[in-house]
Amino acid sequence: MRQLVLPRSYEGAPVLELKGKESHYLTKVLRLKKGQQILGRDTEGHMILLTLTEITASGCVLSCRQVDSTMQVQTTDTLPSYQGPYPNLVLLQCLCKGKKEEQIFRQATEIGAATLALVSSRYCVTDLSDKKEKAVQARFERLDAQIKEALQQSGSPIPTHLVPEVLELKDVPTWWADRGLAMFFHQSTRSEKQETLTSLLKGHPLHVPVCVLIGPEGGFSDEECLFLEQSGFHPVLLKTNILRSETAGLYALSAIQVLLTEA
Amino acid sequence: MRQLVLPRSYEGAPVLELKGKESHYLTKVLRLKKGQQILGRDTEGHMILLTLTEITASGCVLSCRQVDSTMQVQTTDTLPSYQGPYPNLVLLQCLCKGKKEEQIFRQATEIGAATLALVSSRYCVTDLSDKKEKAVQARFERLDAQIKEALQQSGSPIPTHLVPEVLELKDVPTWWADRGLAMFFHQSTRSEKQETLTSLLKGHPLHVPVCVLIGPEGGFSDEECLFLEQSGFHPVLLKTNILRSETAGLYALSAIQVLLTEA
Repeated sequence: MRQLVLPRSYEGAPVLELKGKESHYLTKVLRLKKGQQILGRDTEGHMILLTLTEITASGCVLSCRQVDSTMQVQTTDTLPSYQGPYPNLVLLQCLCKGKKEEQIFRQATEIGAATLALVSSRYCVTDLSDKKEKAVQARFERLDAQIKEALQQSGSPIPTHLVPEVLELKDVPTWWADRGLAMFFHQSTRSEKQETLTSLLKGHPLHVPVCVLIGPEGGFSDEECLFLEQSGFHPVLLKTNILRSETAGLYALSAIQVLLTEA
Repeated sequence: MRQLVLPRSYEGAPVLELKGKESHYLTKVLRLKKGQQILGRDTEGHMILLTLTEITASGCVLSCRQVDSTMQVQTTDTLPSYQGPYPNLVLLQCLCKGKKEEQIFRQATEIGAATLALVSSRYCVTDLSDKKEKAVQARFERLDAQIKEALQQSGSPIPTHLVPEVLELKDVPTWWADRGLAMFFHQSTRSEKQETLTSLLKGHPLHVPVCVLIGPEGGFSDEECLFLEQSGFHPVLLKTNILRSETAGLYALSAIQVLLTEA
């Protein structure tokens, strides 16, 4: 079920006027007519039932009513969908090329990841530290746009959050602060008794966050692996080929989501 | 571990001369030097150890030795990787836009799918039936090129095979011929007692093929669902958001691969 991600400024008013891109999305892309309804979601994830009341020269006007997220709402777009529960997935992606990052974050949003962040590590080919602040800001704006589009198209009930800065690998454990189960994906076995994804997730409560750290194309260095292990991150070797960055994250998140929701 | 996919014409000769793209890949992309080695794989999936013996003006010359696939070969590219066993995954993807198909088949090859095919169904936006034969042929050639590149980059030991024609949905069950477990992914529950991916795969032997049929953006019609069910295809509702085609296939294949290899 498609939905509209409401502007950050929306604070619960009963009437909302939209202009520009947002109005275009409703009246041109979804071709919503007067009297038809669509679900909206504010930045906190609350569901708002929107009814198109007027199409003006510069945009459109909607009436808004907050609805219970457990309620099955019948809107114009009738495609049914899974409504949860969802695991709390956190994807930490080491920097790669901009276009790849956009694809990764778009797909992670689509399947319902809660938090996304970029990480800088030793073998990252991309280095943002010498880039102008403006270029880095533009990169985050493009990622934000991808996430918003994915939220609207997938109708995901999870308000995916992008961490607005690049995390240094050395700061990741402090940032993570042991909020749940943390894993990093590595291309070779780290020890004899290394656990599998299945064994690590066995009995894991659905609401406790799971952190997935995906390395850069060149992988993690030995020192980085050791540091992560000492910080409580579990090394995982997937039983598959060596994956490119844009495949690895989605692979891990998909498997984790199925293991947790079907357990 | 990267590898070279050998030309179709290779039949086991001890010396192989390469020109054009293939030679360029070895000497320019991988920057292989005289005396260095790389793994080759023929179209049957056999492993051939290749040693670069000469770089000529028009290409390069390699000496070839067939090696046992269970042997750990130390080549110039030392990145270790998982060497199997792999489940036998078959992806049937309903037609979508060309670029999306290329991305889907590239990623499916990367994770080790054995067989890929395009399927035409009622709600496919793309229709190849009115296209000139030449255009369809060019489409298959692009897909073949993507698959080959993914095989080389990922070092996958599975010689991914592309079915060289578009299957009609009505012919899919005959084509499949009950070779193993077949599933189709649908956006809503088909019956009260519908099984999950996990329950369907429980106890499934690793070598028995698993067929994953992914619908077009518009999904399958009720008649198509009924037809598939009557033909022994199990409907699966993933516990996630509605996914776009380029996400759905990889999502399903990743989860299935983990469920089977970590079982």
